[in-house]
Amino acid sequence: MGVRVAVDALGGDRGPEPIVAGALEASSETVAPILYGPADLDVGGLPIVPASESIGMDEKPGEAVRAKPDSSLVRACRAVGDGEADAIVSAGNTGAMLAACLIELRRLPGVFRPAIAVPIPAERRPSVLIDAGANADTRAEHMLQFAHMGAIFAEEILGIERPEVRLLSIGEEPEKGNQLTLEAHELLASSDLRFTGNVESRDLLIGAADVVVCDGFTGNVCLKLLEGTIKAVLDALRSEIVSTRRGRMGGLLIRPAARGLRERLDPDTYGGAYLLGLRGIAVIAHGNSSPKAIANAIKLAARGVENGVVGRLAERFPERPARSRDEISV
Amino acid sequence: MGVRVAVDALGGDRGPEPIVAGALEASSETVAPILYGPADLDVGGLPIVPASESIGMDEKPGEAVRAKPDSSLVRACRAVGDGEADAIVSAGNTGAMLAACLIELRRLPGVFRPAIAVPIPAERRPSVLIDAGANADTRAEHMLQFAHMGAIFAEEILGIERPEVRLLSIGEEPEKGNQLTLEAHELLASSDLRFTGNVESRDLLIGAADVVVCDGFTGNVCLKLLEGTIKAVLDALRSEIVSTRRGRMGGLLIRPAARGLRERLDPDTYGGAYLLGLRGIAVIAHGNSSPKAIANAIKLAARGVENGVVGRLAERFPERPARSRDEISV
Repeated sequence: MGVRVAVDALGGDRGPEPIVAGALEASSETVAPILYGPADLDVGGLPIVPASESIGMDEKPGEAVRAKPDSSLVRACRAVGDGEADAIVSAGNTGAMLAACLIELRRLPGVFRPAIAVPIPAERRPSVLIDAGANADTRAEHMLQFAHMGAIFAEEILGIERPEVRLLSIGEEPEKGNQLTLEAHELLASSDLRFTGNVESRDLLIGAADVVVCDGFTGNVCLKLLEGTIKAVLDALRSEIVSTRRGRMGGLLIRPAARGLRERLDPDTYGGAYLLGLRGIAVIAHGNSSPKAIANAIKLAARGVENGVVGRLAERFPERPARSRDEISV
Repeated sequence: MGVRVAVDALGGDRGPEPIVAGALEASSETVAPILYGPADLDVGGLPIVPASESIGMDEKPGEAVRAKPDSSLVRACRAVGDGEADAIVSAGNTGAMLAACLIELRRLPGVFRPAIAVPIPAERRPSVLIDAGANADTRAEHMLQFAHMGAIFAEEILGIERPEVRLLSIGEEPEKGNQLTLEAHELLASSDLRFTGNVESRDLLIGAADVVVCDGFTGNVCLKLLEGTIKAVLDALRSEIVSTRRGRMGGLLIRPAARGLRERLDPDTYGGAYLLGLRGIAVIAHGNSSPKAIANAIKLAARGVENGVVGRLAERFPERPARSRDEISV
């Protein structure tokens, strides 16, 4: 049997069909998806654990998780906490996923705050942005931990040796930034990470660093701006092109090239983001994930299990006791 | 005589040539550029005020402005403070421009902090992002003022009546955000602005609001990410296209369409950003501005004078006394 991945069949904007299709696509000798959802769902022979309730994309995370302990999302998280699965994948409500993971999987000892690590399809080579939105307000010592988590992600998931870590700020000079980044810069500079200073957002898509560290508010803004801008530019170009006959002919000729670029920049290519710092592997897929994106998210989760990401994180944060004031209330 | 615009001939990465060329291009019956730079500069008949020292792009703003009171930048700012010019344009060090403006032009009474307003070439219609980088650390009441300044900019410079104001955050729901945006949201919601809630960064380039308000750290990150991503996507598409013969043929055919898009998205089309909240008009041009960009920045500055932007701002902040703890130390 392969890596057991608990899949929330009711997460996401598009209903269970693309999720089941993605799970079927990902299923192999080494990857064993287990669906959590309505017992009567047609799952093409995959194992399914009944969970009829679902958490909506707009529900308040903490309340929803407490009110629906038997929802597909919470049940799938619990399966990992109880050892019935090795990892969880959901395309559902990100906040609810974070809340459910904190309750059912719990933080690793020594980790202040879990963080979201997102692979960025940078031109040089893939890089990782962390925190992409788990923590709207952060302290500098949290960001130091995010950097360590991101480095392990880059090593184990992206296969980069001795990843270069940079801090996202508003200038490359160490003295450029806000209070938070100035403090984080100092902590990073005196850490044993391969820290090479600040990076500006203009270089994110070119790929100026293997790990780009920031607070979760800034990271979430960057991630959405990156996705929105890529889409807006390609869409605007298309509508300029199709507005003339000459353009339409040219458009046909460049179609393979444009498709190649769209594919590289498509969030579906990676399938999801890791929620790091927990006692298990959790992958958050896009709300409107295609079957391919779900399949990639499941494989991404399996890779984390195979490469022992949780063990690597546990080694990295062995001493630090969790402090109660750092706990996230859910 | 037209609007007198003091132009820093020594600001920017490309030397005085494109600046002089831009000033010549902008010069008209209604716009009268005055250059500040070396007396022996060939300025094609425009007036020049001698100022031989220059402030480099990497100099520390406060120190440089104090150490070089006769630099082209400081002299040009002083000209506006002394009433010898109506507005200043510089493509130089943004921090030094801010510092020099605070000393030589000073804040309007009632304004806590000047802010940078940048026109965004959104698809729907141009919008304004404020603060795009004057204040790395901000409080919610500063952001309320930024919103008012942005609204006046949208009205007077972009010609938008009753501009719609939104707050940049990590979700459209009022309760999504960090501590700072939650507080700013409350202030904005109880103001007399046409505030319509939060906006996510993914919609920046589509144009979800006329005025997008944020703190200066987030705004600067967004601006640079927007510019960097637009450039990276168009460059990547070009290199995909030219890698095959078929693509190259298509590339020739779509060239006019691509050029139209590049032009719309090119920062040079606007030429610059406004520094708002001062007793005069100040426009910051890109460091690597072309002559066209400089000409547009000069015209942008002149429009601010013609439309009485400073007077509109002074009306908007009549009561609030400047509090000493809010002053920026330079």
